[in-house]
Amino acid sequence: MFKKILIANRGEIAVRIIRACREMGIQTVAVYSEIDKEALHTQLADEAICIGPAQVKSSYLNMESIINATLVTKAEAIHPGFGFLSENSKFAKMCQQCQITFIGPSAEIIDKMGNKAEARKTMLEVGVPIIPGSKEPITKAEEGLDIAKEIGYPVIIKASAGGGGKGMRIVYDDAEFINNFNMAQNETMNAFNDNEMYIEKYLVNPRHIEFQILADEYGNVIHLGERDCSIQRRHQKLIEESPSVVIDEPLRKKMGEAATLAAHAVKYTNAGTIEFLLDKDKNFYFIEMNTRIQVEHPVSEMVTGIDLIKEQINIAYGNELKVKQKDVIISGYAIECRINAEDPENNFRPSPGRIENLHLPGGNGIRVDSALFCGYNIPPTYDSMLAKLIVYGKNRDEAIKKLRSALGEFVVQGVKTNIDFQYSIINHPKFLEGDVDTHFVQEYIYK
Amino acid sequence: MFKKILIANRGEIAVRIIRACREMGIQTVAVYSEIDKEALHTQLADEAICIGPAQVKSSYLNMESIINATLVTKAEAIHPGFGFLSENSKFAKMCQQCQITFIGPSAEIIDKMGNKAEARKTMLEVGVPIIPGSKEPITKAEEGLDIAKEIGYPVIIKASAGGGGKGMRIVYDDAEFINNFNMAQNETMNAFNDNEMYIEKYLVNPRHIEFQILADEYGNVIHLGERDCSIQRRHQKLIEESPSVVIDEPLRKKMGEAATLAAHAVKYTNAGTIEFLLDKDKNFYFIEMNTRIQVEHPVSEMVTGIDLIKEQINIAYGNELKVKQKDVIISGYAIECRINAEDPENNFRPSPGRIENLHLPGGNGIRVDSALFCGYNIPPTYDSMLAKLIVYGKNRDEAIKKLRSALGEFVVQGVKTNIDFQYSIINHPKFLEGDVDTHFVQEYIYK
Repeated sequence: MFKKILIANRGEIAVRIIRACREMGIQTVAVYSEIDKEALHTQLADEAICIGPAQVKSSYLNMESIINATLVTKAEAIHPGFGFLSENSKFAKMCQQCQITFIGPSAEIIDKMGNKAEARKTMLEVGVPIIPGSKEPITKAEEGLDIAKEIGYPVIIKASAGGGGKGMRIVYDDAEFINNFNMAQNETMNAFNDNEMYIEKYLVNPRHIEFQILADEYGNVIHLGERDCSIQRRHQKLIEESPSVVIDEPLRKKMGEAATLAAHAVKYTNAGTIEFLLDKDKNFYFIEMNTRIQVEHPVSEMVTGIDLIKEQINIAYGNELKVKQKDVIISGYAIECRINAEDPENNFRPSPGRIENLHLPGGNGIRVDSALFCGYNIPPTYDSMLAKLIVYGKNRDEAIKKLRSALGEFVVQGVKTNIDFQYSIINHPKFLEGDVDTHFVQEYIYK
Repeated sequence: MFKKILIANRGEIAVRIIRACREMGIQTVAVYSEIDKEALHTQLADEAICIGPAQVKSSYLNMESIINATLVTKAEAIHPGFGFLSENSKFAKMCQQCQITFIGPSAEIIDKMGNKAEARKTMLEVGVPIIPGSKEPITKAEEGLDIAKEIGYPVIIKASAGGGGKGMRIVYDDAEFINNFNMAQNETMNAFNDNEMYIEKYLVNPRHIEFQILADEYGNVIHLGERDCSIQRRHQKLIEESPSVVIDEPLRKKMGEAATLAAHAVKYTNAGTIEFLLDKDKNFYFIEMNTRIQVEHPVSEMVTGIDLIKEQINIAYGNELKVKQKDVIISGYAIECRINAEDPENNFRPSPGRIENLHLPGGNGIRVDSALFCGYNIPPTYDSMLAKLIVYGKNRDEAIKKLRSALGEFVVQGVKTNIDFQYSIINHPKFLEGDVDTHFVQEYIYK
């Protein structure tokens, strides 16, 4: 096994990885920016190396600095965590060239899955359902109309060059189509100086369902069941559950097989996540793959008993997966709730500052993954996520009750947090019924 | 279900019970002594009532005060936790007379099992093995010799009136017996002005193995497997594990049946623990029953998935046990480690004071049951236990690695603790091999 691993990240995920290494008897090297000198990950690792000033470009995205730190400390592998360099194929390639193991898939796979158009093409080839839509860019409204008729309404018209909601229209029938296409195309011209449009089936209030994948270097691929991440605000996940109340065993099998098929298709290795949208009729569509560990990985750990970080390290070392698909048993129910330093009363503005007082909930079925401590100074520079509160119960009802109790007990003084906001979500009747979709937060909680 | 429960305790167990109630939707009343006004249990409960000055006699043992608090707040039940009034049959009786549900067995059962001589007699009647010994007091050396021959060597000669090791001799064969008996009897005369002696089989380096019992009011009794609590210092448990490395399935079945038999014999209700000693040849002997929840209950919760505090409340409310014996499946491995405010370098003298800095370990498989917070002032008046660190892993090896990592991460500043002492225990080769008994600590760690 590796003797020493460098963790190219900060915050709770760096702490999470350091803990896994400690349990595996692997020495750890933390890297930190100047402002993170007192951070928990810096304190907890066996060694810690400063890699530059606070700005991410100069530190946590500074590939040369991180590679240097790895070489200097003689670490054999780098765990990139999530965010930062975790899906950067150039960095993965640099590691390879320096004979450092990048704990994740190869640069080629990152590229292949990172390009959404190419990923979509690959899925189409192997028969994993994707959201129906135009295969090529469209410039004429009539062409668009034919495609819309073919895939069925509602459809969404998007700018190929798009972003920020510009050049986007949802259309519900033939009569509205031409007019809307032209308006969208005009907007696109104005915004991007481009007239290429794109048509896709519009899913009404879908759920976000993703499958956790583990794949070794010997072609073994397993999935660890699904996570339901439908509770989002502006595409940021807030609450994640496993399993999902809408997935029964046959559907889990079907989606799980599609997910493993997708991983096989690109000869995927290490941990990854296949993200799907699920419509009201239980049709599912591949949207993208994340070629790294995810924030919400703990809920899968709780219900399967499999430690994903340890498996990542094992796989990267070249070990064969010990767990077979038939050994993966989903048992109990887990929910994760992200605690952010932000002010929900002030448009969720980040709220950095000093933690004056802190009480993390604990006890039976309560897991907190965080890098917090009393007196810690949250810098304004990075992501506002402070902690992940993960609860585990026999069933969803028990898990929600634990979450309610634990959120009620959580005390963070000195900065604003979204704890009360999360509390209002989990006490909403729709949430309690499990009747949620990706529009839930904006429809029912925060208009 | 109960609407409101009063918790007649303090510290981590009061917090543990409050959390269970919160999760069950039951309102809680904390009682506190004047010195515990800022304690976590006082802060966490829905209501809190001061029941007297710091001294336990005036507060946590003050039955009238606690009954009054219950009546005033209209709580329907009292959870006594462990220690204090938890095994006080007079208090259980008082509750009954005031139509308050005592969450535990009836006063009669507490009395029956609390009297060690009577408990021993009951076990003998139903065929649960007890340590072989003289049935009546002995005054003549020759009588003693006959009994020693019958039960086999080594035997221990004890003063009936004994205590503090006075009048006690371990004898290994016939030749030594008469002489030792006379010396022990002389000592007994000098110490207690009494000549009645008692002979018992002497177990060489036994293990302490106990079985967790749950029994409802309808005659259903189940056991939740064993806890190995052999790591003790002066009869104070330090580390508890479940399952035990020396118990295989047939022995678990046999001991479990003996434990449920013991509970049936006294028509036991609620949670309880049957404690056994286990000798090198895997013979087990009943030593006593604890008619309450125990400090080490979390390890059983981790490996069975059953919440013991919730079950206690359910049973006390009159619900039938939902779990059958066949549904109790021991899965994985749990270890609990008691963190005390005491100074191992100074004969384990209690170390009260203000917590200046605190970092509790967390993450995957780490549970901390505590009443600590940063700035908390540990009063000198009560038990020195600060926290229970419970780890859960696939197997003992993984659990120990988690424990090692978590103990290494645990920071308590401002008072002395036994964290390093516990660290030295769990890193001892004998402990790693699982080759321990009740003499382990004094033989290998602290002479």
